[in-house]
Amino acid sequence: MKIYRNPGKKELKKILARPVKDHEQIEKIVKPILEKVRRGGDHALRKFALEYDHVSLDDIWVSTEELDAAKNQVDDKLKDSIAVAMENIHRFHEAQKQEDLEMEVMEGVFCSRKSVAIENVGLYVPGGTAPLFSTVLMLGIPAKIAGCKQIILASPTDRIGQLSPEILYAANAIGIHKILKIGGAQAIAGLAYGTESVPKVDKIFGPGNQYVTAAKQLAAKDAVAIDMPAGPSEVMVVIDKEANPDFAAADLLSQAEHGVDSQVILVTSDEEIARKTQLAVSEQLKTLPRKQIAQESLSNSAIIVLEKEEGIINAINDYGPEHLIINTTNAESLSESVRNAGSVFIGPYTPESAGDYASGTNHTLPTNGWAKAYSGVSLDSFVKKITYQKITKKGIESLGPVVEHMAEAEHLHAHKQAVSLRLASLKQ
Amino acid sequence: MKIYRNPGKKELKKILARPVKDHEQIEKIVKPILEKVRRGGDHALRKFALEYDHVSLDDIWVSTEELDAAKNQVDDKLKDSIAVAMENIHRFHEAQKQEDLEMEVMEGVFCSRKSVAIENVGLYVPGGTAPLFSTVLMLGIPAKIAGCKQIILASPTDRIGQLSPEILYAANAIGIHKILKIGGAQAIAGLAYGTESVPKVDKIFGPGNQYVTAAKQLAAKDAVAIDMPAGPSEVMVVIDKEANPDFAAADLLSQAEHGVDSQVILVTSDEEIARKTQLAVSEQLKTLPRKQIAQESLSNSAIIVLEKEEGIINAINDYGPEHLIINTTNAESLSESVRNAGSVFIGPYTPESAGDYASGTNHTLPTNGWAKAYSGVSLDSFVKKITYQKITKKGIESLGPVVEHMAEAEHLHAHKQAVSLRLASLKQ
Repeated sequence: MKIYRNPGKKELKKILARPVKDHEQIEKIVKPILEKVRRGGDHALRKFALEYDHVSLDDIWVSTEELDAAKNQVDDKLKDSIAVAMENIHRFHEAQKQEDLEMEVMEGVFCSRKSVAIENVGLYVPGGTAPLFSTVLMLGIPAKIAGCKQIILASPTDRIGQLSPEILYAANAIGIHKILKIGGAQAIAGLAYGTESVPKVDKIFGPGNQYVTAAKQLAAKDAVAIDMPAGPSEVMVVIDKEANPDFAAADLLSQAEHGVDSQVILVTSDEEIARKTQLAVSEQLKTLPRKQIAQESLSNSAIIVLEKEEGIINAINDYGPEHLIINTTNAESLSESVRNAGSVFIGPYTPESAGDYASGTNHTLPTNGWAKAYSGVSLDSFVKKITYQKITKKGIESLGPVVEHMAEAEHLHAHKQAVSLRLASLKQ
Repeated sequence: MKIYRNPGKKELKKILARPVKDHEQIEKIVKPILEKVRRGGDHALRKFALEYDHVSLDDIWVSTEELDAAKNQVDDKLKDSIAVAMENIHRFHEAQKQEDLEMEVMEGVFCSRKSVAIENVGLYVPGGTAPLFSTVLMLGIPAKIAGCKQIILASPTDRIGQLSPEILYAANAIGIHKILKIGGAQAIAGLAYGTESVPKVDKIFGPGNQYVTAAKQLAAKDAVAIDMPAGPSEVMVVIDKEANPDFAAADLLSQAEHGVDSQVILVTSDEEIARKTQLAVSEQLKTLPRKQIAQESLSNSAIIVLEKEEGIINAINDYGPEHLIINTTNAESLSESVRNAGSVFIGPYTPESAGDYASGTNHTLPTNGWAKAYSGVSLDSFVKKITYQKITKKGIESLGPVVEHMAEAEHLHAHKQAVSLRLASLKQ
């Protein structure tokens, strides 16, 4: 990790720039997949599973037997840990329930707003080198709390058509039983457009590789809502000279091991701790099983020394990190200046991995600077809010003329007429 | 309007199908516009204003003089009406503020969530045949309540470079002074990517034609968040035999006059009221200034007779209308079965136009069936929610082992290490 000392505004922007992606190339690959699943249904899903995941699937759905078997394949220590995580995630997301809003805006004009669960949701859990059962919890628990009627989980299998027992166990534990053994862009297509056996969903959640992301964005144009645009995972760690460099190094590495395109940024006011952390990173890297991956992502990463607190605050808010760890003596007050971040980890004993798994906050967060406009997944993501109005005779008598004047000024005479007819009927 | 009697499930689906759009053709036109503004900045904006809006602009920004002059160009009656509408919209959106969430999820594990205003927002107000100043209120008021730091309004001018005084007056009244005299895809490009004089925004709001919509969706891939995908406006009116057919006809027409692609659906349990409303529509249509437009959109519209209430409820929720007027004797209880709709208008004295202008609810609503997954614009649309966690020594001692087990099961050893190092330091 290279150290930059008090970079100017322009240089800082360059250091913090995220790699730009070529959407076009990936879309060219993904578009025909969407089209083929749209037309070919389950048959196309099976065909793509064979082509991309090298698995021949008789049934594209997880069976009850497989779900049952998973219970015996997960060890008790892990089951207990999952239970604690579930409890915390449930508690924090349950507390996000919002009361219905009801008010008499002016005499006789009653307005209200109500949260209603999105009926059909699809949860995507990536396959690959690690069985990401924590994502099952992070998406499934709020979907359940919201009361989504149909929850479908999709994840690619291994070459013999099996999902990891941890994923199946976690899904079962929160009451999700419809599990599709399909991954990649084809899974997104199945959920977005529906097939003979896959019900079309209203919204798709979850992380994925660039093909999954492109498929989500393409389907979002006309078929389905999505949680947020996704990009490589990232962390910004802010420390001062009192911080423990080993903690900081471990935090940086726990992001770097995610993938070769992960972004890892250390920001500090103190050059000595910067150097100590740099050393600690090299040291800890040596024994890391995912050393290769971490090493590659570290090559795009940076240590930035900014002596002024104002500079640090600007760096945070200009970057808008997905994860922000603030481990300084004034962490609490510094966190109050954060305007752009997905989730913030405060103090020496709050590693990102706590939030990744079990503190209760959601780990599906806006990357790539999207934190400037997007929230992470929360209970809100699984509901939509419907507004209602009811106007009494008295209400329309006072509000009616207002609407008439405004409609007339917008040259929308039928809008005016809808009020005028009602007012006239009251005068009879 | 054609009457369909008790259509079967399949036929109903066909009747309620929305026209499918060809995105590709429009994207082909819009993409180069985005690219040219991205590269050419203000110069490109001026060039496109000349090409598409036939106006030669010296300054692309509204001047203080223009804003001041507008105050004298709007009549007092309209000013008073705008004041009432502003007050109602303000009251209902102010009430949407959500308290910060703070909780101790388990001993020593503190999680919280806070709403933070999106800093830079762009509000698009379409030009065309009617000066849609109501959209200025619907987008500007919640942006102001949220506390967005920079609010930029964009709208195309007439051929002599002027915006309607009503739009300027409304913007000024709510404290928006940065007004860009640019419309179309080029306005979206300016806001999404920034130019010499236009600051890049984080999120773009507002309705627009298919070019604006395509530009928003393209820019949403890599540059900016958007409020929601947009489509032609639509209303579903539900009445029973007690309803006033003239009211229903006026409600249908007030949607039909919006544009030739507006969707208008009447649903009723009673065939006689269906016929009476059909007649009343023809009658009221005769004197409508926007008769041509309304007539064309009515040609794609339908009256559906469904004798069973269950059928009516399914029709509502399958269609997911942007606006839903329920004018039946059991309107209140029927509205409780609504799961998919943008905004609901209950009872005989609640025309859609009340909500379009002044009841207090927002009129920027999900069209095209998006109500199944999207909410209309609200205060929520102008904030994002950041989560925070702070864990004490005691907290990490109990939560730490949980995280260690889970990280290990996901084969993410650096994630585990970030906890293990902290636990080890506490044992020393």
